[in-house]
Amino acid sequence: MMIKIIVAGPRGNMGKEAVSMIEREADFELSAVVDRKYDGIMMKEAEGMASLQVPVYKDIDKCMKEVNPDVLVDLTNPETGKMHLRKALEHGVRPVVGTTGFTDDDIRGLTSLAEEKQIGAIIAPNFAIGAILLMKLSKMAAKHMDDVEIIEQHHDKKLDAPSGTAMKTAQLISEVRDEKKQGHPQEEEAWAHARGAEYEGMRIHSVRLPGKVAHQEVIFGGEGQTLTLRHDSLNRTSFMPGVKMAVEKVMKTTGLVYGLDQYID
Amino acid sequence: MMIKIIVAGPRGNMGKEAVSMIEREADFELSAVVDRKYDGIMMKEAEGMASLQVPVYKDIDKCMKEVNPDVLVDLTNPETGKMHLRKALEHGVRPVVGTTGFTDDDIRGLTSLAEEKQIGAIIAPNFAIGAILLMKLSKMAAKHMDDVEIIEQHHDKKLDAPSGTAMKTAQLISEVRDEKKQGHPQEEEAWAHARGAEYEGMRIHSVRLPGKVAHQEVIFGGEGQTLTLRHDSLNRTSFMPGVKMAVEKVMKTTGLVYGLDQYID
Amino acid sequence: MMIKIIVAGPRGNMGKEAVSMIEREADFELSAVVDRKYDGIMMKEAEGMASLQVPVYKDIDKCMKEVNPDVLVDLTNPETGKMHLRKALEHGVRPVVGTTGFTDDDIRGLTSLAEEKQIGAIIAPNFAIGAILLMKLSKMAAKHMDDVEIIEQHHDKKLDAPSGTAMKTAQLISEVRDEKKQGHPQEEEAWAHARGAEYEGMRIHSVRLPGKVAHQEVIFGGEGQTLTLRHDSLNRTSFMPGVKMAVEKVMKTTGLVYGLDQYID
Amino acid sequence: MMIKIIVAGPRGNMGKEAVSMIEREADFELSAVVDRKYDGIMMKEAEGMASLQVPVYKDIDKCMKEVNPDVLVDLTNPETGKMHLRKALEHGVRPVVGTTGFTDDDIRGLTSLAEEKQIGAIIAPNFAIGAILLMKLSKMAAKHMDDVEIIEQHHDKKLDAPSGTAMKTAQLISEVRDEKKQGHPQEEEAWAHARGAEYEGMRIHSVRLPGKVAHQEVIFGGEGQTLTLRHDSLNRTSFMPGVKMAVEKVMKTTGLVYGLDQYID
Repeated sequence: MMIKIIVAGPRGNMGKEAVSMIEREADFELSAVVDRKYDGIMMKEAEGMASLQVPVYKDIDKCMKEVNPDVLVDLTNPETGKMHLRKALEHGVRPVVGTTGFTDDDIRGLTSLAEEKQIGAIIAPNFAIGAILLMKLSKMAAKHMDDVEIIEQHHDKKLDAPSGTAMKTAQLISEVRDEKKQGHPQEEEAWAHARGAEYEGMRIHSVRLPGKVAHQEVIFGGEGQTLTLRHDSLNRTSFMPGVKMAVEKVMKTTGLVYGLDQYID
Repeated sequence: MMIKIIVAGPRGNMGKEAVSMIEREADFELSAVVDRKYDGIMMKEAEGMASLQVPVYKDIDKCMKEVNPDVLVDLTNPETGKMHLRKALEHGVRPVVGTTGFTDDDIRGLTSLAEEKQIGAIIAPNFAIGAILLMKLSKMAAKHMDDVEIIEQHHDKKLDAPSGTAMKTAQLISEVRDEKKQGHPQEEEAWAHARGAEYEGMRIHSVRLPGKVAHQEVIFGGEGQTLTLRHDSLNRTSFMPGVKMAVEKVMKTTGLVYGLDQYID
Repeated sequence: MMIKIIVAGPRGNMGKEAVSMIEREADFELSAVVDRKYDGIMMKEAEGMASLQVPVYKDIDKCMKEVNPDVLVDLTNPETGKMHLRKALEHGVRPVVGTTGFTDDDIRGLTSLAEEKQIGAIIAPNFAIGAILLMKLSKMAAKHMDDVEIIEQHHDKKLDAPSGTAMKTAQLISEVRDEKKQGHPQEEEAWAHARGAEYEGMRIHSVRLPGKVAHQEVIFGGEGQTLTLRHDSLNRTSFMPGVKMAVEKVMKTTGLVYGLDQYID
Repeated sequence: MMIKIIVAGPRGNMGKEAVSMIEREADFELSAVVDRKYDGIMMKEAEGMASLQVPVYKDIDKCMKEVNPDVLVDLTNPETGKMHLRKALEHGVRPVVGTTGFTDDDIRGLTSLAEEKQIGAIIAPNFAIGAILLMKLSKMAAKHMDDVEIIEQHHDKKLDAPSGTAMKTAQLISEVRDEKKQGHPQEEEAWAHARGAEYEGMRIHSVRLPGKVAHQEVIFGGEGQTLTLRHDSLNRTSFMPGVKMAVEKVMKTTGLVYGLDQYID
């Protein structure tokens, strides 16, 4: 069965990759795109879009009414994404929203709405299946080897340290292990901060160098052995298998699902 | 509650480590050891044993009758291990046997016996929790990223390639992915065998160098990303957390369990 | 002092990067480009070129006569590159040629010509300074630790195995160590070819996976220790520091230099 | 030619390994050992020594007079080592001293003495050839790629961070590159100290985990590429090739040499 999809945010980095992935997939059909700048023309006539004979809408309501898609893939921003998610549900269109910033209240409201409409909806703060796997496997490993350090490495244009994934991983691990001060109790830093950041006794280290992209390593130490889980991400194409999976899953789901990790076992 | 343990094979590499681990653990008590060479003396009087005031028995039946232990830890050899397992069950002692070589028939017979006696029994072909985790996590990852290569690295005294763990891992992965020829369909080897061994389309590479001990890396490749799981093992102490876990689990188990991976989730 | 440069092959992948690097460098000036398709227009009017007010020539002789550059950067192909190199020397322009395929006879002839003209000329089969460093450092390390294995990892669109860099590295190492069969003399492959390719006793392993780009690891093993040298290359921008270095060096060199490794110490 | 060697400090960890290495080498002969506890007996009669028919001396002067060795290998402590070095030179015995703590004044005095006696002498603060190579190669690489971070990983019994080798490496690199603040100028730590220690703009990270031994990684980042040099050390046997090299070199050297890096090129 062909799944009819509309994409919101088709000129962004993620949006472009999503358009091109949908075009490649035999069972997916790109029915329209939603863009705040262009309206009523074809994608190939709009600057910054793929050269496709696919209509562009400014108004998402009008788009859904006329096109009657199965799925909305939203790759805009938190505010717009939230609004689009609600509108999609109201139109009976299954939303896949790749933004963050939903409050617990938002989630509750949207959960009710999805159940009322009896269709699926997915919010995915992270589409990188490799990174989701890394976090999930790290949590499993931490149950059995509870000495852990994280090293994340990124390009030197990155402003924040540690990376969001590293912090999220440390938090997930702390759900399954007790707080534990690691290293020798009397350890001393001859050069300040060599031991990195601390989170419930775990140590986190951030490397920033040109030539790096996005890399994360979780190292578990035990008597006479170590286990290391590592994810290396090169570019935004790494998110597309996750977008594809979300589209397939949202067709078979009823109710709201938060996070693709639910589908990874 | 103190768990009373007897160890068979106390002079082997694994046996020595097990004796010393039991001594360290507050809730474990070493009640006796079973050895085919010494009988009726204390461990400290026997050559090649730890300096302990713990009796040595040649006859395992006599040992179990007199000492009445909770658990037998057997680190001997396949033949002796099989015989000890059966005897332990008959005496109502919970066996933890760290040997391989059991046939399907053996397993069936021992399963019945364990259920009849209503006690637990564990056969553990591998006590290295890190290696078990690596295999288990690899199987999970392979469901979502099905291009896989394995690199294992060992010291240059090792006779066989690939390592048993690498072959086992490849087999486990093949249970969850379809056969898939990897690499470019027209790829050519300018230097023969550069692409390594093949198992259902997966590639396996064996490095042998002085200075290495036992290392295994499973690399999963996907669009724009890779996920790498790695286990580094330094020495036999790495098996002891697995022996400890087996002793604790066998006390709470009824029936026969094959492989510690059942306890890792 | 401003260095006036012309680029041959400005529409190729390397050429594009070189044009953009020259534009960025304060001391470099792009005076013209040489292209077999376009002639007599500006770069910005030609399809597939950067939007620059820089003239395009089809005829390299005419270009050098009219523009009078200091340096020719040639990123075309072996045949054209060889012809351009000779012409540049005849015009008194210092050539930097990034192609392979020169015979010993070619080199001898061009060496004489460069000396006669009393100017510098550089042939650089590889501009990746990181890769050149890897090869140079590997050769140094091999003098002191002579057990070596090479693992190279590339994307799964690559046709040949091992990579050219891996083969070159093995050859360089063999210049400083005697042939040496590595691994256990009685080692056996349970799965054929697990031990990879062999070159004078060294083992070379080629991994091909989506999500990889171009990676090479040289591992030296010794008693109780290993030394690992690794180069990871992401894209063609990694060649630009080498092109820049070549331009700067060719201005200070007299005679022909083959390979940038001569400038790395 | 057989080289006659005496070892001072034969009961220490390094001393034991040195004794066993000398026994293995065809061209080396262990003539005597110097020990502050035992005197006038054979090694095999002393507790904590190898079972050898080699005399033990308390008085190093007497030992050198009676045994007339070619080389003294001193693996004691800074104070004793300094005294032994001077005495060896006075007796015309070539010293190889593996201790630190020599002042510039000491070095000057000993240099004069060695030249006066016209024999070789080596002070080696580090015998691990792999580590020396790592430092030497890092210094070379830093000339061409000046963004650097160091990650060192050790067992969790280590008291100090960063390791001595990491600090030494950072200092060596700073000799060939200008101070350079790395990372984004506006980078911010969401979790304090994630970016590790700083030395002239370089970042240094210390990992401490059970299951690790002694590992150091120097990562150089450049446009589109990284170069990584890594040393993994398992145990003290890794120092023996360095001791062996020092003994061979000291026989062919005239004057004092400080550091084995002089012999590595």
